[in-house]
Formats: sequence, C-alpha cells, structure tokens
Amino acid sequence: MKLLRYGPPGQERPGLLDAQGRIRDLGQHVPDITGDHLDPQTLRRLAALDPETLPLVDGDPRLGPPVGRIGKFIAIGLNYADHAAESNMPLPTEPTVFTKATSCITGPNDPVMLPRGSVKTDWEVELGIVIGRRTRYVGKDEALAHVAGYVLVNDVSERAFQIERGGTWDKGKGCDTFGPIGPWLVTPDEVGDVQQLDMWLDVNGQRMQTGNTRTMVFDCATIVSYLSEFMTLQPGDVVTTGTPPGVGMGKKPEAIYLRAGDVMTLGIERLGAQRQQVLAWRAEA
Amino acid sequence: MKLLRYGPPGQERPGLLDAQGRIRDLGQHVPDITGDHLDPQTLRRLAALDPETLPLVDGDPRLGPPVGRIGKFIAIGLNYADHAAESNMPLPTEPTVFTKATSCITGPNDPVMLPRGSVKTDWEVELGIVIGRRTRYVGKDEALAHVAGYVLVNDVSERAFQIERGGTWDKGKGCDTFGPIGPWLVTPDEVGDVQQLDMWLDVNGQRMQTGNTRTMVFDCATIVSYLSEFMTLQPGDVVTTGTPPGVGMGKKPEAIYLRAGDVMTLGIERLGAQRQQVLAWRAEA
Repeated sequence: MKLLRYGPPGQERPGLLDAQGRIRDLGQHVPDITGDHLDPQTLRRLAALDPETLPLVDGDPRLGPPVGRIGKFIAIGLNYADHAAESNMPLPTEPTVFTKATSCITGPNDPVMLPRGSVKTDWEVELGIVIGRRTRYVGKDEALAHVAGYVLVNDVSERAFQIERGGTWDKGKGCDTFGPIGPWLVTPDEVGDVQQLDMWLDVNGQRMQTGNTRTMVFDCATIVSYLSEFMTLQPGDVVTTGTPPGVGMGKKPEAIYLRAGDVMTLGIERLGAQRQQVLAWRAEA
Repeated sequence: MKLLRYGPPGQERPGLLDAQGRIRDLGQHVPDITGDHLDPQTLRRLAALDPETLPLVDGDPRLGPPVGRIGKFIAIGLNYADHAAESNMPLPTEPTVFTKATSCITGPNDPVMLPRGSVKTDWEVELGIVIGRRTRYVGKDEALAHVAGYVLVNDVSERAFQIERGGTWDKGKGCDTFGPIGPWLVTPDEVGDVQQLDMWLDVNGQRMQTGNTRTMVFDCATIVSYLSEFMTLQPGDVVTTGTPPGVGMGKKPEAIYLRAGDVMTLGIERLGAQRQQVLAWRAEA
C-alpha cells in the first residue's frame, strides 16, 4: 500500500495510490495519515479496502509529506561507508544521531529554498523509516515490526551551518524546506527487503549520487533498536538513515553546491521519486 | 499572567494561577495552552479576564508542561561562562545549538527516570523561552516581541550518552522524562528583566547550582534572533538557554550523578519551582 497526503500545505487530505498510479481519496476511512493512524490494525483495515471503490482524485494535486504531524525527525549520519570517507569522517562505531527540525518538513516536490547567506547547501538522498508503534528498548529482531513503512527523504544540508558554525550539526540540517519527504509512505509488504534498494540523485539531470541500501553501516533494524535505547519512538516519527556517496561536499576536484535555479531529482527503488527546484530565500514562503 | 496545564498526562486542561496561588480553570476561554493560542491577541484576551470569575480548581492536581504540543524543543549549550569552564569546553563564539526530543517533555514535578544502564545522569536548571509568534530572520531588537513567556526547565542530561557515544549531543539530551517544564508559562510583563533572574538547583536538599541569567554568554534576544537565521521558530516552540555552573559532571574532586531515590528541586526567580524524584527505569511509565 502506498499512502499519501494531497492538497495545499497544511490542508492535505489522506489518499492512496492505486495500481494504475492514480490518487484515491481516503477521507471516508481515516481523517489523516498521522501517527494516530499508523498502527497495524488501522493499516490492515486500509489495506483491505478495494481502491476501485474509493473516490478518484482529479488532476495532479500537490503532494504533501505522506505523514502529517511528525513528532520527531531523527537522522543518522555517516551511515554509508563510502559517504563517511568522502566526508573525511571516520566510520562510526555506533550510529551517529542528529535531529532535523520538524519545521523543515515539506512535500516531495516543493521547492527547496536556500537560507540567506547560504553558499554550501547540499543534497542527500535517504531512506526514511516511519514508526508505527510506540517503541522503547526493542531488540533488533523485533524492531522492524514497529515500522509502519518507508519513505524517500532528501536530507538537505547546509554544510557551513552544519560544520563551521560551532556546536552540533542541527543548525545546518533543519533549515526551512530542508526536509522533503515522500511521495508515498510505502508499507513494508510492498518494499520487500529494505536493505536491497537502489537509490539515486541527480542535479540538473546529472547523476550525483548512486547507491544501494545494502551498503548501510547500520541497517534499519539496528537503527530502530539503537534509538529505542535512548528515547521512545512514537507513531509518526520519521528516522532518516543516512546517504550514500556523491554529496556535493565530497565532489572532486572541488565541492559543488546548490544554486538558485538548480533542480534536484531523486529516488529510491519502490519508494518513488522527488523533484525540487532550488530557490533563493523568499520571505512569503 | 501565569498560565498552566493541570490534570493527568495527555489530558491536561488549561488554567492560570491567581494572585492567591490557586489554580483557575481556563477551559471556557481557550481549548488548551498550545502554540495555536499563544499569539499576542489571545494572551491579551486571557490577561483581561478577572481570575475571580474563573472556576476554582479543587485539590492539588498534577501539573503538566505549561505548553502542550511543543513542536520543537531547542537547547543552547555552554551558555554560561562558568559552566563552559567546569565542562572543560571552550567558550563558544556563537550559540551552540542542540535538540531535545519532544518525547522527553514532562510536567514540572513528574519523576525523572534513569535510562537502563545510565550511570551519568545529570541536572541542569535553565530558563526556557516559549515562542509566541512565527519567527524567521528577526533582529535582536525585535526578538523578544516574539516571545509568549518564560518557563523553568530542567535540561536533564545523560553525560555518557551525550559525550561518549559518538555523534552529536542529542542521544544524551532527549531520553524519556529528561525535559521537565513548568510549573507555569509566565508572560513577559510578570518576568520583568529576563536577564536578571536568580536560579538554583538542589539535590536531596544540598545546593548544587546557583546562578543568575545575567551571566549568560548570549542573552535571550540574541538566541531568538540567532536561531531564526537557521529555521522558523513556531508558536509553542521552546528554547532552553543553557545552565549556570554546578552540574554534577563538573563537581570536584569527582563528578556526582543522580541515583534512584534522589530528589531534585530547582527554581528560577518569578518562574516558580520544580521537584522531581529520580527513579530507575520502569517500562510502564
């Protein structure tokens, strides 16, 4: 099942993608796709619906993030060995955890805006885990049973803010529009082996990142289990799991960063694709 | 005005503290104390009420965090010169920013639970800023006009998780129950000069921390302005502003950490006091 939310920002309605790739409205069956409605029972109930019986949504509406009211947006750094190397960072011996501000979350095709003064805004295609059940001290064997599904994330990052401004990485990770999520929340049954998914990212049509989730240092089950040692993961929380090689900061002979007018396209096998135009900061957004 | 929320966890009702220190119910005037109801107009409307006309709340109910549905819980590290010294950290040249997981937020007198395996859980009395208006790229001169009020925060911290486990500080800052907030949201008119407030924290009746907000490296206006360069601060976001000297990690001849059975009491002038019993982890909590 591919769950989604469509409509203007802040007014998204719940929907799902049918077998023909059309949006079907779910408003009669669930008020919204949020942590309150990601439990296994609700997901089973929605999966049992015949999409043909759901209202077809006309046109090509904007997609919002496929989960609303995300409580925590947690991120794992340096989780692909080759990416750690290109970042000149040692391979972590346990997961590197940081936080993206929930106010950075946008729809999968919404513009990404460069913060004022930014000259080092960078891309990161990532697999995101959406938590479906309250999760605390869960073992690796049980961890994936707490997952409602998976999403595509662009962990947009301002490297100067992240690395050169003191303190933790959070300053460069949570800028407004730095968290495109979607297009869909794909339930585990449609994802198959989450550690065998190809992933890619282009800037202006040029391939920048190529990877596969099989090269994660810490796999999804390990990450969920590990985080649950430190805090309760709540339904609707999103954990983004790190990026493969090819970020702008690591390009040779010199780093490449985003400029206004650039277009990012990215995707992960079975999780769909995103497209973001890069804009200069606009106060009205 | 001292706004508060009272009742069982997750079922808190809005209230205010009257001049005699009694709780008055605000449920007929505002559905809850959340970011949706912290705008200047709503605060003026509530302040215009005669507390004597509001229902008196019987007994001594539990207090919840005085703001519900907190979207972001942002923290400033090393913001008192003496605390930076005791932590063996250089004084930051710009604010050090990290994030506390919103799932750590509790009421001011709720127990603090030691995570499994924790041997370095520590205390930090702090002044918290509650944002009242959408805030982005605000100058220092305008910053405090975006503040709905101030709160007392205990920025409970597990030092091994924070410092010895790799990555950013967030692992040791967002553990469940590590974010007691309250008792009240005190509006700026009742706080007076926010940079002249005495603060203290005791463990088992022994004074551990003594400070005054006048010794902040970066004052509240600077912090709000600075953060707004990186992200939109939303109504109901809480920014906790760092701790004065006297944390357990800095004690001589050796560090002192919390143990099950300890009691923390702490307060800030005009913002009230908290009391937390320290417990071993309990799965049911």
